[in-house]
Amino acid sequence: MTDHSERVARYFEDYVPGLTVDCGSFSIGEAEIIAFAREYDPQPFHVDVDAAAAGPFGGIIASGWHTTSLTMRQMVENFISPDSSLGAAGVDEIRWPRPVRPGDTLSVHATVVEARRSRSKPDRGIIRSLAEATNQDGATVLTLTGINFVLSRSAAS
Amino acid sequence: MTDHSERVARYFEDYVPGLTVDCGSFSIGEAEIIAFAREYDPQPFHVDVDAAAAGPFGGIIASGWHTTSLTMRQMVENFISPDSSLGAAGVDEIRWPRPVRPGDTLSVHATVVEARRSRSKPDRGIIRSLAEATNQDGATVLTLTGINFVLSRSAAS
Repeated sequence: MTDHSERVARYFEDYVPGLTVDCGSFSIGEAEIIAFAREYDPQPFHVDVDAAAAGPFGGIIASGWHTTSLTMRQMVENFISPDSSLGAAGVDEIRWPRPVRPGDTLSVHATVVEARRSRSKPDRGIIRSLAEATNQDGATVLTLTGINFVLSRSAAS
Repeated sequence: MTDHSERVARYFEDYVPGLTVDCGSFSIGEAEIIAFAREYDPQPFHVDVDAAAAGPFGGIIASGWHTTSLTMRQMVENFISPDSSLGAAGVDEIRWPRPVRPGDTLSVHATVVEARRSRSKPDRGIIRSLAEATNQDGATVLTLTGINFVLSRSAAS
């Protein structure tokens, strides 16, 4: 089941394991890669064109945190719902299996892996979701498993 | 063993399990919390002062990705070495056990958990490190386990 609709109000009951949501796509340019990395991850292969060309990736690549943050934006706009989101406990197993380079276009999908109602607070549940970003060649550049607290519809109504 | 020195050239051989590095501290303000979240994590409790006051945290809190990215900067400046860093495979188990609020000052420490030389490429090794950020009250607000590829000193010389 793939849900292509955007800006849907989703509650705990809507995050059914197996649900996959198309979270759209975005492109990433060299200037923004360098600007983000200067602020948060100033390693030579993220911020210095010449050093990057001579370095382990043969050119500038995006900080994994930049790719992750941009993927998060797609999830906030398409998967996580402001009506129900109570924040995240954390994230398991972020992997950046391939570099992201200037000019890449990444597509994001999110799949519900597990959903369980809180025992201590039955007005909410805990959702585990797998997010995946793939580049224009179909290669995976990011996977992560998020752990989110979400209000139930019955609690909200 | 705690290493307080900054901007040290570290190689695989230097990342000995048990080594803890003081990665310094930083403060975080409301304007930058909102600016980051507008770009990457526009949930009401990160970007909208009024909605945040009425929301689950009773006020604006930093995006976990913002806290993580700022912690990364401290690690790049104090723990990861541009002389040896070959990038990261990923991260395991990010946890944000408490919210980060405007005005908080966070201190970062990194501890080497595991170091093993690559079998396929003996000029490098894989380091697993636990990063922890604590606030001005000594409470932990972030933990993560990073997995980094690092050149060995013998390969560099």
